[in-house]
Amino acid sequence: MSDLLSDRTRLDRYPARGKHDFETIAAILDEGFFCHVGFVQNGQPYVIPTGYGRDGQSLYIHGSASSRMLNRAGQEIPICVTVTLVDGLVLARSAFHSSVNYRSVVILGNAEKVEGPAKLQALKVIVDQIVPGRWDSLRPVTQREVDETTVLKLDIVEASAKIRSGPPVDDEEDYALPIWAGTLDFAPLSAAPKADARLRAGLPVPDHVRQYRRVRK
Amino acid sequence: MSDLLSDRTRLDRYPARGKHDFETIAAILDEGFFCHVGFVQNGQPYVIPTGYGRDGQSLYIHGSASSRMLNRAGQEIPICVTVTLVDGLVLARSAFHSSVNYRSVVILGNAEKVEGPAKLQALKVIVDQIVPGRWDSLRPVTQREVDETTVLKLDIVEASAKIRSGPPVDDEEDYALPIWAGTLDFAPLSAAPKADARLRAGLPVPDHVRQYRRVRK
Repeated sequence: MSDLLSDRTRLDRYPARGKHDFETIAAILDEGFFCHVGFVQNGQPYVIPTGYGRDGQSLYIHGSASSRMLNRAGQEIPICVTVTLVDGLVLARSAFHSSVNYRSVVILGNAEKVEGPAKLQALKVIVDQIVPGRWDSLRPVTQREVDETTVLKLDIVEASAKIRSGPPVDDEEDYALPIWAGTLDFAPLSAAPKADARLRAGLPVPDHVRQYRRVRK
Repeated sequence: MSDLLSDRTRLDRYPARGKHDFETIAAILDEGFFCHVGFVQNGQPYVIPTGYGRDGQSLYIHGSASSRMLNRAGQEIPICVTVTLVDGLVLARSAFHSSVNYRSVVILGNAEKVEGPAKLQALKVIVDQIVPGRWDSLRPVTQREVDETTVLKLDIVEASAKIRSGPPVDDEEDYALPIWAGTLDFAPLSAAPKADARLRAGLPVPDHVRQYRRVRK
């Protein structure tokens, strides 16, 4: 089991919630589809949401996020990619022990631009991460479209996962208080298809849309 | 209408999707409850998820996020706070025009630690942002708990919102293709209460839990 721990990804706070094995990290990444990318410009951090896809130890990031980031991506730049799945709210009997149940992954590293034949495959990985099976149903991409899209690749080698689950953990003397406590568990993300007004007549909703579920594995 | 535009928050890409008025930004912030905070250490950006609450032009950020960040927060440090609401997936007829419907806010500025009497109020703002009405039902916080919690304050003065909504916008000649297109609209986040196993007998589920809805306004 590979270990992606480094001094920079070690958790200072609640280290028991930290995981550094690849399998845990990959499972969280596979359940999500959008990330927050952090980068630095003139000493100022920026955090931009964008789509991603995982293929093995590579995380491909859709470069639409920011031309600010892209302008610097010719050279390799240090970035941080964070993916967070929020599972529920933890309603303790005190504010201090109130919390959120979540699973997050933080990946550090230098992003590099994907070029050449690998870029087409990377775009497929991103599209199919967001809607599995979608890529093969689409009008093929043109070379111009590939050229106009930027894809960054980040190796998943320095990373940590953080997981908080389960009921509140209150101070012992607080359990007797007449305060409702427990969790508010979010239902899995569900989505309803809405056909485009200009859809060609007679087209059925394809399986990859009709059966869309956010949990992939 | 105040304008939070700066050279640093101007959108380089799809500027038509950008908004800089306070009302739009505040509405997005009020609908969310967790953010991604970006900060820099030794040239490396970090992006950490945590809870927040808005009160007027102040964004209060729960400092559990990272002791790394907190260790530097005595001095004012440049941070970026990003809040993203994902509304749905945009299934175009080509990969190039496939997209995500979302609303995001990016706030830049220097975070300062909240101290003194303002800190208690800031904690209430954060707790009630996550579960409106929760604070008043809780066992009062102790001074020790206040001391052990860090809260950062970021003024909402340099910020941008970005909004993508509606159906796919395909190339004109692609509309005739036999490819299903439209949106997959995510249902609003719903949550089911699960009482703590050690709940005091006979406690009903309070209104602020039973009526929990993520959309606040």
